[in-house]
Amino acid sequence: MLWGGRFKEKLDNDALRFSSSLHIDIELFDEDILVSQVHSEMLCKIGLITKQEQKKIINGLLQIKNEFQSGQWKPNPNEYEDIHSAIESRLTEIIGETAGKLHTGRSRNDQVVTDAKLWIKKAVKEVLKNIRSFQQTLLEISEKNIETIIPGYTHLQRAQPISFAFHLLAYVEMLERDKKRFLFVENESNQSPLGSGALAGSILPLDRNFTAKKLGFKESTKNALDSVSDRDFILDFLNAVSIGMMHLSRLAEELILWTSSEWQLVKISDQFTTGSSLMPQKKNPDMAELIRGRSGKIFGNYVSILTTLKGLPLSYNRDMQEDKAPLFESYYIYSESLQILTKIFRDIVVNKNRFIDQLKDSFILATDIADWLVLQGLQFREAHHTVGKIIKYCEEKNKSFTQLTLLELQEFNVIFNSEALTYLTIETSLKRKKTFGSPNPVLVKKQISYWKKKLSKG
Amino acid sequence: MLWGGRFKEKLDNDALRFSSSLHIDIELFDEDILVSQVHSEMLCKIGLITKQEQKKIINGLLQIKNEFQSGQWKPNPNEYEDIHSAIESRLTEIIGETAGKLHTGRSRNDQVVTDAKLWIKKAVKEVLKNIRSFQQTLLEISEKNIETIIPGYTHLQRAQPISFAFHLLAYVEMLERDKKRFLFVENESNQSPLGSGALAGSILPLDRNFTAKKLGFKESTKNALDSVSDRDFILDFLNAVSIGMMHLSRLAEELILWTSSEWQLVKISDQFTTGSSLMPQKKNPDMAELIRGRSGKIFGNYVSILTTLKGLPLSYNRDMQEDKAPLFESYYIYSESLQILTKIFRDIVVNKNRFIDQLKDSFILATDIADWLVLQGLQFREAHHTVGKIIKYCEEKNKSFTQLTLLELQEFNVIFNSEALTYLTIETSLKRKKTFGSPNPVLVKKQISYWKKKLSKG
Amino acid sequence: MLWGGRFKEKLDNDALRFSSSLHIDIELFDEDILVSQVHSEMLCKIGLITKQEQKKIINGLLQIKNEFQSGQWKPNPNEYEDIHSAIESRLTEIIGETAGKLHTGRSRNDQVVTDAKLWIKKAVKEVLKNIRSFQQTLLEISEKNIETIIPGYTHLQRAQPISFAFHLLAYVEMLERDKKRFLFVENESNQSPLGSGALAGSILPLDRNFTAKKLGFKESTKNALDSVSDRDFILDFLNAVSIGMMHLSRLAEELILWTSSEWQLVKISDQFTTGSSLMPQKKNPDMAELIRGRSGKIFGNYVSILTTLKGLPLSYNRDMQEDKAPLFESYYIYSESLQILTKIFRDIVVNKNRFIDQLKDSFILATDIADWLVLQGLQFREAHHTVGKIIKYCEEKNKSFTQLTLLELQEFNVIFNSEALTYLTIETSLKRKKTFGSPNPVLVKKQISYWKKKLSKG
Amino acid sequence: MLWGGRFKEKLDNDALRFSSSLHIDIELFDEDILVSQVHSEMLCKIGLITKQEQKKIINGLLQIKNEFQSGQWKPNPNEYEDIHSAIESRLTEIIGETAGKLHTGRSRNDQVVTDAKLWIKKAVKEVLKNIRSFQQTLLEISEKNIETIIPGYTHLQRAQPISFAFHLLAYVEMLERDKKRFLFVENESNQSPLGSGALAGSILPLDRNFTAKKLGFKESTKNALDSVSDRDFILDFLNAVSIGMMHLSRLAEELILWTSSEWQLVKISDQFTTGSSLMPQKKNPDMAELIRGRSGKIFGNYVSILTTLKGLPLSYNRDMQEDKAPLFESYYIYSESLQILTKIFRDIVVNKNRFIDQLKDSFILATDIADWLVLQGLQFREAHHTVGKIIKYCEEKNKSFTQLTLLELQEFNVIFNSEALTYLTIETSLKRKKTFGSPNPVLVKKQISYWKKKLSKG
Repeated sequence: MLWGGRFKEKLDNDALRFSSSLHIDIELFDEDILVSQVHSEMLCKIGLITKQEQKKIINGLLQIKNEFQSGQWKPNPNEYEDIHSAIESRLTEIIGETAGKLHTGRSRNDQVVTDAKLWIKKAVKEVLKNIRSFQQTLLEISEKNIETIIPGYTHLQRAQPISFAFHLLAYVEMLERDKKRFLFVENESNQSPLGSGALAGSILPLDRNFTAKKLGFKESTKNALDSVSDRDFILDFLNAVSIGMMHLSRLAEELILWTSSEWQLVKISDQFTTGSSLMPQKKNPDMAELIRGRSGKIFGNYVSILTTLKGLPLSYNRDMQEDKAPLFESYYIYSESLQILTKIFRDIVVNKNRFIDQLKDSFILATDIADWLVLQGLQFREAHHTVGKIIKYCEEKNKSFTQLTLLELQEFNVIFNSEALTYLTIETSLKRKKTFGSPNPVLVKKQISYWKKKLSKG
Repeated sequence: MLWGGRFKEKLDNDALRFSSSLHIDIELFDEDILVSQVHSEMLCKIGLITKQEQKKIINGLLQIKNEFQSGQWKPNPNEYEDIHSAIESRLTEIIGETAGKLHTGRSRNDQVVTDAKLWIKKAVKEVLKNIRSFQQTLLEISEKNIETIIPGYTHLQRAQPISFAFHLLAYVEMLERDKKRFLFVENESNQSPLGSGALAGSILPLDRNFTAKKLGFKESTKNALDSVSDRDFILDFLNAVSIGMMHLSRLAEELILWTSSEWQLVKISDQFTTGSSLMPQKKNPDMAELIRGRSGKIFGNYVSILTTLKGLPLSYNRDMQEDKAPLFESYYIYSESLQILTKIFRDIVVNKNRFIDQLKDSFILATDIADWLVLQGLQFREAHHTVGKIIKYCEEKNKSFTQLTLLELQEFNVIFNSEALTYLTIETSLKRKKTFGSPNPVLVKKQISYWKKKLSKG
Repeated sequence: MLWGGRFKEKLDNDALRFSSSLHIDIELFDEDILVSQVHSEMLCKIGLITKQEQKKIINGLLQIKNEFQSGQWKPNPNEYEDIHSAIESRLTEIIGETAGKLHTGRSRNDQVVTDAKLWIKKAVKEVLKNIRSFQQTLLEISEKNIETIIPGYTHLQRAQPISFAFHLLAYVEMLERDKKRFLFVENESNQSPLGSGALAGSILPLDRNFTAKKLGFKESTKNALDSVSDRDFILDFLNAVSIGMMHLSRLAEELILWTSSEWQLVKISDQFTTGSSLMPQKKNPDMAELIRGRSGKIFGNYVSILTTLKGLPLSYNRDMQEDKAPLFESYYIYSESLQILTKIFRDIVVNKNRFIDQLKDSFILATDIADWLVLQGLQFREAHHTVGKIIKYCEEKNKSFTQLTLLELQEFNVIFNSEALTYLTIETSLKRKKTFGSPNPVLVKKQISYWKKKLSKG
Repeated sequence: MLWGGRFKEKLDNDALRFSSSLHIDIELFDEDILVSQVHSEMLCKIGLITKQEQKKIINGLLQIKNEFQSGQWKPNPNEYEDIHSAIESRLTEIIGETAGKLHTGRSRNDQVVTDAKLWIKKAVKEVLKNIRSFQQTLLEISEKNIETIIPGYTHLQRAQPISFAFHLLAYVEMLERDKKRFLFVENESNQSPLGSGALAGSILPLDRNFTAKKLGFKESTKNALDSVSDRDFILDFLNAVSIGMMHLSRLAEELILWTSSEWQLVKISDQFTTGSSLMPQKKNPDMAELIRGRSGKIFGNYVSILTTLKGLPLSYNRDMQEDKAPLFESYYIYSESLQILTKIFRDIVVNKNRFIDQLKDSFILATDIADWLVLQGLQFREAHHTVGKIIKYCEEKNKSFTQLTLLELQEFNVIFNSEALTYLTIETSLKRKKTFGSPNPVLVKKQISYWKKKLSKG
């Protein structure tokens, strides 16, 4: 126990189990070792420990690292409050009394928040890598589907023809925003709290800039009280994960729709679908469902920490221990979701001609016709209304657009001419798009090149 | 694998790890074994398996139970999707092909929801027991503090004198409502879904009433599609836990305040406080902080499941697998919180005279004076205003109520007489309360008796 | 202002605007008038006001009610903190000083929670009526679609044939559970807090049972401190609304799918769809989307109150004022959602033969074949596997089940005979169902009768 | 109505009321007018409308703006779906058929998201101003309280002495992080979606860069489908508000504690406290309570939008209309909370000597003594333990630190000398602090100067 001098009775066993966070903050093992190494260097530099003592501490820490990685040493949650106590205890077992010098000028309050910021910086790096991989996979599939025409939907109703490539590029955009959000988090985690003590710094001449630099931080935090009370970087990380996961949940929903018997647009390989214990014919898109479903967990985790922090007086309160389980869990769910989706998309089979016939017989080009009328000089509202009336007529006569004769069209407006009929071909519809950001195959190709170049730079 | 006949490739390893719920639904082991036992009895009863086959199955299940409880058999999450598959696989290893008959007329869809309802019913029983224990402990402390006068607060400002017993009885009321909420949940979990199949029942003559009765359910569910899609009982359970935990968070906040240097109303024993790694003098109410902090987790878990279920088409979707981790976690956090608080209160030391002197010099009896004026015939608003002006006068003169002379009082209103002065004694203030539900010691004693009798009946 | 005697400066204007809840709790107008009426009766009964005074008060209150309902009197949020102050002020204007007697023995703390409980009881009644109406509409549509065969889904993959009636009956079940949840809330709102004062009752001989009875409560609350601190009934109401809305969000999702070009199962009438400002052909299921989308709001409202209450020390804190906006908003969203869905379903057009041909060529009867094999003596796992292999064979040969000859089937298992082939008819598949709760038309008809009878009783 | 050509029946009245967002998106009036102005300029530039037509449109829009601001024109929610339709309708009334040209090449899908981004950019500016004002006020109070010694708390237990200035500076840090978060949001809202059409751009040669520049955006969005589906910027805004409000909730909690009878550290002026309708002596910190309480609403609003977006297929779905009410509400609550707190702090009265005597008799300097022992050569753990034992001794003898003689101290460790005794003076304790970020008055003064200079630059 790191405290205890004044206590008459030791902590109740149930209370220890209730309060120990060791099974969770063991995730911070690497960071905690690193922070102790750097802290001991600094103590040596300012003369509070000798070179020899420091060497002893470093060697002890390295031994613990080896023991931990090889599975030789497993700290027991029924014995220690947290990973920090466990490591200090083990260090005492290995190097004896000198271990007691390591906690000089340090509180668990500043130690744990330093560990957490280092962990976040590491996690952000991993996330960025995973996002980029997924973007690259989406680009590969896009490249093969620039001419694959599918209906674009609003309100899940067929709206206008787009390409499958164009659809996937929308996700590439979302993923890029996600990366920017994580970069913001990284920047917000770049101030070292080490040396803030429990809440008020120290009378010892601790060199905070030294440890900040050595740990890879940009600078030191500026107010000790704030340093140990601050969990903003965790909330920002969870916001980034929440929005990222919301994006994945939308793609997951689409995968589920696309693989349904009603859509039949894509097939997911057997390796990423599961069957039914009862129904022999089933092939279920479980991975997509789990991703969609786990977004609930991710959102709940953000709520959980925000609620925990609400109304807490400064500075550190034990409530704040509860920040770590949601943090780690959200990170792992999100990372694995990205990886699984990357794998799924790599093997996806797109039914390229699925919609082409159906779209021919539909009214999906109505907007193009209206816009064509505008180009002939009609004002837009009138054009819109005219096309609406044509559709009503078609529905009553049970006809499709393409079955209309020029004469029939002219009954709605004499302005119609033979060029209008060419606007009813699905195949050429994308090529007519003029605006930047539209599914025009030429523009989509450019976008793909843009992304490939950009992503190749890392 | 329980499916697979039509699959050409087996599930990707990452996908298996991503989708396996074994490490979580292992919590349902007991219930799953029980459901299989009863299901096999029913299959035998309707003639789909022989007596001998059924015996073989039962023996196999019992062996698995023994192996599991003794730690001999540990199902591996890298091998199985869930506890149901793991058990069926192990059964096949033990009794061979006959195991394949157990899944007759059963889907994991109805199996898992049956397991979950049985688990909830068990959990409710435990929770009720824990709540009752805590209520009883609160009553014990109350009994000793009927005359312990403390300020009652509104807006955390001292409002009127009450007793510590009266304050604790407010929590006994909350806990009683919590119990009613759990009883409602139990009732809502009392319909057996077994025999609903994947979503549409079966062409086999399964006897659903037989299994319902044997499993201790009140009746069978009435629509197979709803049966496998329904997670209402889990949400109701989590609502009950959330409100229960909100109550505990309020008490935890009060404990934290009461043990502060500013309040000094109660002392928590050393066994349930912790120290600081840096500051030798600290004694921190960590358990209370953790309970307050973990309410965030509990609320987040409710959000998480609700969000997961939002917008899911019928019937079963794999998203719904995500219901279990939050359910189990919330249950354990809440149960342990109740137990820890019970232990803390058992040993609590109340500083009985903490406030008595301070209250004498305060204006905490202002309402009583106003009410006394009403009894003399003043209308209330005037009485309220008069007392307000007396307080302003006292503040300016730096006097307390009790230092006022009758003459001074009469300058505000001639109606004041010597009886008014007796209304300024803190010690007698509680005894003057007339209304049912007030802190009058006579009434508080009655309430305590009422609760003791009621709780002794279980 | 209801307070102020001791205050030297009046409330800052921004602070008044920031803190006034009048624009929200104006919803409690009716309840507040009623509570004042009954409170004045009680004051008269115990002799604190005269008959004449009471009459004056009652008349004044009635006048305010008339003025309010006719729009003559509109309380101004820039002038009053809340509806309670506004009414008392207006009463003073009308009847003069006597109004000052009405607040005798009453605090806004007990008044507001009494108002809120009365409002909840009224709201529950309305909700129950709306749910019942919707159930009845669903039953009407069900009755016409007992033989309308559609695919039942798990994982949004076609699983087994069911009927549209059976599908809708699942929602009737959910709605029935919702009603039980609201009945629980009503019961939990049935204790009168009036007479609890600010937190500690009163030295005046208030007759709490009298007011409880007159207001239609079952009994009085038992602890004054708890009475003014308790918002459980609001959380329970919001839990009920959340789960209810989650159900509606699932149905909304299904409506959106069903009306898509891919499903084409139902048509919503023009009166409940909207068009596009740009695309003339669109007909969008906006109402269903809004219901699905507003579930987010509803869940957020529950979170909001729970978070607000977290960690609040007893008794009343101003934070608790924030309970009302979410309460009223959730109620209105939910009620209107029920009403709109009722109207939509009344006019819905079901495409009865939409799936019948497609299902014939699918493997949706695979479970029935497996079960048939079980009836011939195969153990289930083997049967499941056999059918799986047949499907793989069909997929390779590009055949459907119904195109298989008996000889082909017998290559998989000699047990196949001509009866097996009859199991492949979609039309008869429902009639073969044996279990209670299945889509067997006979059972579905019975269920419909059961519900109609039950609902007709109210 | 902006659509309707093909519809046979008009929208049901209840459905219109249910779906209209006019009462909410009326907040976007200014932005909508601006977007229409710029859009018409662009249409003119590319030749789709004439100069004259454009002038007519601009004049019409200006007239509507005047009518709206003067209250002459009030769009009716029972008549229009949203503010966009209302404005277009009014424009038609004013300028006739030409109005129908304004919607050329525009969908409400891209229009609404353009409006929303412009609104966010405006809101961010306001928020930044409010935060800065509050920081400046905190700095003013800090400057006067550099030597005001108060206990710093961990676990709400007194931990180490700090200054009130140092405490407030922690909030200045938080507020600065909040500003950075809003700047990130602004940057993420800086791409113009206008010209994305409903989801797929247009066959008309719309000049998106022109409108982007004119509207003050940095650039155009790159994928039309993503442009109309994206609400990330709203979630990022709500995350920023949530974290910002969480900070305010912590300060609110502290204000409530500080103004309690137990703390008596600060007094809030009468203008920002309220009284009780029943208890004449009360002065309640209602504004702080409301801020703390409303954090629940703010968090709920974030949850609400995230949940609404979960699992939505691309592109626009009507669910997304639900993003605006929470956005606007959270913005106003947060802004007003900042303003009210600024006002409260401007007038706050700090009880500068509140704690000084109490701290003298406490063990709050225990850490300094331990650190002093370290400076004498003891290892820290031993020093910590030694001080712990001294405290236990003091508690048993009922003595404070300052009552200990040097002899008594030396019984615990001979290393103690007279210098140790000087470490027990509260008054000098802050000055001894060595680390950057500590409450050393010299450092605190520097921080205040740093902030004042930084904030003066805006």
